[in-house]
Amino acid sequence: MKLSILFGGASFEHEISIVSAITLKEKLSGFDLSFIFCDGDHKFYLVDKNKMKATTFSKGEHKKMPQLTLSMGSFTQKGMFSSVEHNSIVLNLIHGSDGEDGTIASLLDFYSIKYIGPRTSASIFSYDKRYTKYLCEAIGVKTIKYETQRVNEHKNLSLEYPMIVKPATLGSSIGVSIVKEEDDLDYALDSAFEYDDNVLIEPFVEGVKEYNLAGYMADNEMHFSIVEEPHKEEFLDFEKKYMDFSRSEQVLKADISDELISKLKSAFEKVYRGLFEGALIRCDFFVINNVVYLNEINPIPGSMANYLFDDFPASIERLSNSLPNSKKIKVSYEYIHSISSAKGK
Amino acid sequence: MKLSILFGGASFEHEISIVSAITLKEKLSGFDLSFIFCDGDHKFYLVDKNKMKATTFSKGEHKKMPQLTLSMGSFTQKGMFSSVEHNSIVLNLIHGSDGEDGTIASLLDFYSIKYIGPRTSASIFSYDKRYTKYLCEAIGVKTIKYETQRVNEHKNLSLEYPMIVKPATLGSSIGVSIVKEEDDLDYALDSAFEYDDNVLIEPFVEGVKEYNLAGYMADNEMHFSIVEEPHKEEFLDFEKKYMDFSRSEQVLKADISDELISKLKSAFEKVYRGLFEGALIRCDFFVINNVVYLNEINPIPGSMANYLFDDFPASIERLSNSLPNSKKIKVSYEYIHSISSAKGK
Repeated sequence: MKLSILFGGASFEHEISIVSAITLKEKLSGFDLSFIFCDGDHKFYLVDKNKMKATTFSKGEHKKMPQLTLSMGSFTQKGMFSSVEHNSIVLNLIHGSDGEDGTIASLLDFYSIKYIGPRTSASIFSYDKRYTKYLCEAIGVKTIKYETQRVNEHKNLSLEYPMIVKPATLGSSIGVSIVKEEDDLDYALDSAFEYDDNVLIEPFVEGVKEYNLAGYMADNEMHFSIVEEPHKEEFLDFEKKYMDFSRSEQVLKADISDELISKLKSAFEKVYRGLFEGALIRCDFFVINNVVYLNEINPIPGSMANYLFDDFPASIERLSNSLPNSKKIKVSYEYIHSISSAKGK
Repeated sequence: MKLSILFGGASFEHEISIVSAITLKEKLSGFDLSFIFCDGDHKFYLVDKNKMKATTFSKGEHKKMPQLTLSMGSFTQKGMFSSVEHNSIVLNLIHGSDGEDGTIASLLDFYSIKYIGPRTSASIFSYDKRYTKYLCEAIGVKTIKYETQRVNEHKNLSLEYPMIVKPATLGSSIGVSIVKEEDDLDYALDSAFEYDDNVLIEPFVEGVKEYNLAGYMADNEMHFSIVEEPHKEEFLDFEKKYMDFSRSEQVLKADISDELISKLKSAFEKVYRGLFEGALIRCDFFVINNVVYLNEINPIPGSMANYLFDDFPASIERLSNSLPNSKKIKVSYEYIHSISSAKGK
């Protein structure tokens, strides 16, 4: 099947999106793939498949490739005398801002282009960690307690040390610190405020178990990956995370009870249903005393969490065949007609 | 000052957006206005100011006017040999879907066009009434209790009659019913499901006091309109609401205590701050036993609630001079450079 991988974006995660796209080129080699790059200036380029390596973009070689513009139903390559329309399904693989904050979703919906990825509202609830908390509270999924701080707000925190300080809206551990004592708090807050005007502070729970689960919905049924227990490190620094986005080796199932797996799947489905249709997402959970807490929703996980699926290409194909239709609202002029005919015009 | 009014949209409220735009033409007559119409097929047209009447659009006469496309920093009118860029600040006046669901906000942000209106996340929290409840719960603003139902879900409701049934995402009373007894419930649900897959059900409180308050932030300070007690009707039908969007006569202040006004402003500011910057919004409140409940957030109120402001043009000008800057993220290739130089490439 045909699929266009959309990657890049004006984002702090621009580079890892490139790595993700290169990884998917291998993992989806049976597909008829094309690659659409969004550069830091929001220009789109059609990238030659054979040039899909990281240095193409760091050296700016993409600028010599055909430029694309959005038009109804497609990305269009305008020529001197004619245009080529690239209208296959898009896989939104732009991590971080643009891709995960609802911008790309809105653009593709506006131009009636079908895509794999979170819709605008799903993006808002997963991109900003505060809003993930709001969502979980409303739908009855447990999360770790938290406080927020706005830049220049300087309020007293009631949480105890150690705590973890995160920019509200970034992934990939950018700007995240663990704070063990009060002396280190200001520096951690400043580091986080470099990336976002809002910061989330949570207790840092030592020895917590972490589990990742990916999944998607097709034909109104949930399809789950295996559950992974990610490598235990205090947390991933950016370079390690960067390498993490190029993962393609399948991982081993976490050694946990069927009961715990059911609990994870049940929390995942509560989050997903009615909001994330069209996307393959990864939810990262904490388990403390056998209670499941949602830590984070990755609506466009690194290299689409391919390494968690038994048959990743089949999953992408199944999802592609079950994408939400954007509702087409038919505009009516009923009232204007009735008013103007009453006026005899 | 120059201002482009963007109106229309593929929305059930397409017609009332036209009425809103015509009203603003009068109310902002001191401005250098231009009018950008978004039709039901998502095409943009530059509308001749002298043709700004309802029948221009119902008769399709806009199709003879210059078409505009989005490009970096402007709406562009492409000619045979040159292009004209329309790059003044945009006032997003598209009510309902497209305008209030985050789509237009994302488009304008992506193309770096400054605008008056809710940003994408603010749109999500106001467009869907369920998400307004999530927000209010999280920030400590009271709302009426509610239940939700998804299409084909058929769960038992625990609320008592009378109740009010609303599609989760529409404004202007479209699809809304008051249900006085069980026999009428199915019909009311069906009517609401015609417009949305999710429905909100609330107790219908008789004799509740309603108050509307509009406002915006400029220079980090809230600016409020007067408080209005809207005309008491069971609720507005579409035709009355339609006329309501053309309101331009200033209204009388509600006869309420300073204490209640303070409570309304305080709830408004809690909702607004940190989320609605850049927008002039109207919040509709219920007051029951002197307790304030938020009923609805109108992030693009009909004709911008001009009739609630003492000096509406000055308000729009003040807001225009205090719009949020979209953060420009500078893409870096630091890691790709360091990895490829380590490999000696």
